[in-house]
Formats: sequence, C-alpha cells, structure tokens
Amino acid sequence: MSAGKSQMNRILVTGANGFIGCHICKLLIISGFEVHGVSRTAPSGAQPNGMIVHTADLLTAGAPTALVRNVRPSHLLHLAWSEPKTRALMKIENVEWISASHELFRAFIEADGRRAVFAGSFAEYDWDHETLHETRTPARARTLYGAAKNAVRELVEISGRESSVSTAWARISWVYGPHEPRGRLVSDVASDLLSGRKVETTAGQQERDFIHVVDVARALEALLIGDVRGIVNVASGQCVPVRMVVEILGQLAGRSDLLAIGAKAMPANEPLRLAADVNRLRVEMGFVARYPLEEGLAATLDWWRAHAAAE
Amino acid sequence: MSAGKSQMNRILVTGANGFIGCHICKLLIISGFEVHGVSRTAPSGAQPNGMIVHTADLLTAGAPTALVRNVRPSHLLHLAWSEPKTRALMKIENVEWISASHELFRAFIEADGRRAVFAGSFAEYDWDHETLHETRTPARARTLYGAAKNAVRELVEISGRESSVSTAWARISWVYGPHEPRGRLVSDVASDLLSGRKVETTAGQQERDFIHVVDVARALEALLIGDVRGIVNVASGQCVPVRMVVEILGQLAGRSDLLAIGAKAMPANEPLRLAADVNRLRVEMGFVARYPLEEGLAATLDWWRAHAAAE
Repeated sequence: MSAGKSQMNRILVTGANGFIGCHICKLLIISGFEVHGVSRTAPSGAQPNGMIVHTADLLTAGAPTALVRNVRPSHLLHLAWSEPKTRALMKIENVEWISASHELFRAFIEADGRRAVFAGSFAEYDWDHETLHETRTPARARTLYGAAKNAVRELVEISGRESSVSTAWARISWVYGPHEPRGRLVSDVASDLLSGRKVETTAGQQERDFIHVVDVARALEALLIGDVRGIVNVASGQCVPVRMVVEILGQLAGRSDLLAIGAKAMPANEPLRLAADVNRLRVEMGFVARYPLEEGLAATLDWWRAHAAAE
Repeated sequence: MSAGKSQMNRILVTGANGFIGCHICKLLIISGFEVHGVSRTAPSGAQPNGMIVHTADLLTAGAPTALVRNVRPSHLLHLAWSEPKTRALMKIENVEWISASHELFRAFIEADGRRAVFAGSFAEYDWDHETLHETRTPARARTLYGAAKNAVRELVEISGRESSVSTAWARISWVYGPHEPRGRLVSDVASDLLSGRKVETTAGQQERDFIHVVDVARALEALLIGDVRGIVNVASGQCVPVRMVVEILGQLAGRSDLLAIGAKAMPANEPLRLAADVNRLRVEMGFVARYPLEEGLAATLDWWRAHAAAE
C-alpha cells in the first residue's frame, strides 16, 4: 500500500516508542508517510530510520496543542497512554488521559487534519457479554483505564462530528508480541520460561482473542490509509483458552516442566469467554491477520531470546 | 424526614449557589444536616440561614481534595458544573469537570464518606430512544456536556465499587423553576413575557419531561437520606409538547399575544419525544412530584415577577 505521492501525508504518532508504536512507525515509513513520533521519554536509539522524533509529556495541559501546531499533521495516530500493565488499570493517571487526548484531537481538527485513528481497547466493553461487537455490545468498563477510553471515544465522536476530520476507533483485543513490556501474560510467561523461572498461572479456562502486535500494526496502517469510520475491532477472530497460550509457550521453549497451571486462583468475576466479532475488519476492510497463534508465539519467544541479555 | 440525631450528618454540596443548589440546601438544613456549600463565586448574600459557606474553584487540580479534607463530610451532593446554558453544552470546560469530579469523589472516599449523590442529566442518554430508562436505554451523548457526565458516572461507579461509599446518580430531566438562569426555555419565555418582549419559538411539537426544581430538590434529598444505588431518573413522568409549556406561560402571564410559536425552525435531528421512565423513583423510592406543570409554571412566573426589577 502507498500513502500516495500527490499529496503529502504527514502523520503524528503518539506513544511512538511504545509496544505498538515501535511496530507501526516502521510500516508507516515504508508506506511513504512522513512520520513524526512523539514519546514522553527521550529516544532510546531504537527508533526506525527516517522517523522524526519529538519528546513531550502530553499530560501537561497545552502540550498536545503545541505539538500539533508545530507538526501540522494530515494524519494522527493516538496510541499514547500510561504503561499498559495490569496493575495500572486503576491508576488515577488514566483519567488524566481523557482531557489530554481530547485536547490532542481538538488541536488536530484546528490544524486541518484529515484522518485520525485512536487506539481503543476491549476494556471498554461490558464483559457480561461473550461476543464483543462494535455497536451491539454495550460499553461498560470495569477499570478506570476502560472508562477513560470510553470517555475519550465519546468526546472524539462528538467533537469530530462537526469537523471535516474522518476518524476511526480501533478496539484492540489481547495483543502480544515482541517489545511487549513485562507485567502481562505473554511477556511474563515467555521471559520467565527462558530464564528458567517457574510459571504459576490460573487454570486458564478463560477464553480470549489474542492478536500479534504486527497484525495490530498492519490493521492500524490499513485504518489510517482507508476511510472506515467509527469503532472497528482489531482482533484475530480466534478465541482460545489462556491455558493454551501458556502451554504453547512451554512447548516452544522446551520448558513445559516449569508450568504450574492452576497454581493461582481465578480472580472473582473473571469472564469465561470474551470473543471478538471481526466482521467489520474482515468484510469492510478486507483485513486478514497473518500470524496464527503458534507462529506468533514462536516469534515472540525468539525476540525474548535475543533480548534476554538486555533484561 | 429527619437525617437522624444519633450520628452527625455533615454534607458537602457543590454548586450550592446554583439553580438546583439554592433549593436543596434549604431542605437539607431543615432535615438536620450540617450543610457546607461550596461555589466558585463568593456568596451573594442570598445563602440560606445556617449554611456554612466555602469558596473554591473545583476545576483547579487539588482544590477538590483540599476542600474535602477540610470539611470531612459524611455526605456529598455534587451539583457543580459549568453554566447550564444551551450554548455551553459544547464547551471544552465540560471535559475539565471529568477529572475534577472524579478527584472530588476519590477524596470523599479517602475521607471515609458514607453516601454520595451526583447530578447527572438526560443528556447522557441515546436520544434515538423515545423512553429513557436507567439501564435499558444506552448511554450515548450528543454534546460534550453529556459525554462528560457519562464519563464521570462510569469513573464514579468503578472507583466506588471497592469502597464503602454508597452512591446514587440522579439523571435529571428538563428542570425549570425559580432561580433558573436565563438562556433556557422556561426562564427565557417567562422573563420575555413579563418584559413585554416577543417570544419566538419552534413549532414545539417535541415532547419532553419537565420537572419543577423544588421537586428535583426533594428527590435529591430523598436520595441522600436513603440508600438507593446506581442511576435513578429524577423526572416528573409527564411528557408534554414544548408548545404546551410556552402556551401555558403565555396564558398565565396574560400575554399570549406575544407568542410567535413556529417562528423558528426546528433544529435538525431534534428528537420528537424524550419521555422518562420513573419506575425507580416512584416504586423503589416512593417519590411523587408535587408540582403539576401549570402550578409549577405559575410559581415560576411569580418568581420572575418579583425579580424583574433585579434583572
């Protein structure tokens, strides 16, 4: 896919140094975008070649507006948020992202931006439902993280309605892959197995939709280049027991002996099944995920092997 | 109703100088609460006898926490918001109330508060539905005001879940009555008629649930004293055409000659009917509104007559 030569496509990517950000920026540069990546922390040196780097704390009021006025992007991809670790889901900082994200989008409208894509989350959905559909399943968060995402989505929808900006809201399922920070299922299990640490998990019967981060990046790129509007589930469409993910990692690492599946109690109210309806992604966008689960997990383990020394 | 003598009931009322605030504070003092009223602006001298007055701008980060630590209330009634005029519904300031309101509630939890009631709005509902029910009708705002209220509600629900605070969210329908600021239907029509100004309205076929502000205050008092949790519609249960409200005001003022009903075009997408389901209010709380529409409008006109000089 090409972003076109006739009109300059300049994209501002927030959270460019993050888990998803570092994958999508590479793709966007290849697609012909002029990529401006912003992160809270100074660049680590691992930025893709050709990315124009900005450092800003978007949670400072006025910072999103100053950044957008400086870059004047035609496209916006808003990935930035607080660390995606499970224990961060109830932090107050999530609430601060509401006004920061809204300010960013308002500045983008004022700067005559054309297309904006936001990273939403399955945490926005009411998890009393088994199959999560963009419009048929009600939004009802369990965490401040999910509630803040819901708030940003509603504010963006309303502020965008009277503008000429086209927007899409990517609701991303359980993403895993290279560069995932520790503190989440796949990153913790993969790195623990390779370090020879015992892995204690729940019985793992709960079923989730796991998607490889490169597939997420490809879907976000397709969303940015296209004009599909509103909420789109970005998910693999495959709903598997968490236990299966853990067992595959154990087998691939050759360390199934380290697994203690069932050693931890299932948290109360943990939903048994959260499947993604991926009709919009498949039918309207013609998008197909490339990574089957086993292949995606193998690639993730390879990455951890290469980065184990750095840990 | 009595708030009880055995345990001290100290309530913090935000927006105490506002339209609803000035009515409810009087009731709460009579009920035996120690009432701490906070407003952005310094007191005008019209505060009810016995109210302890605080001045604070709750939109300043840290201000809600400092106030709550100072007052240490057992009860919280959060009414404060930006001016409720129609043209303010899309102002950015609405978004600032999200984190301010959430900070207020978190501080209340930390100060061992027991019961909190919040002013929500019918602007939270998806207006593609004709009858608005607390849980069966989806939330989907059309304005930043409504979206911000939705966000506060979801954040309060989540933050309150693991606390011992009991909370209720009053979704208030179209409130009218004495002390309503200009810029809304009843206040504008009433004051225009009494001043001999021509009144131009839409055809007014759209049906809404109007409730007198004293009935709203009584319902909020009942919510504060009781323990009903979650969303409760605070509405009259009577859904009437806007035209009828205008015509009654014209007749009561003896100035039907000033009415030009139909002179203004109906805004696009204006919902034809927005009725309130008031089963929770009536059955669970045993609450009945006291003001029939005509009586409530007559009382409102009386108030405007007495205050015309001050205008």
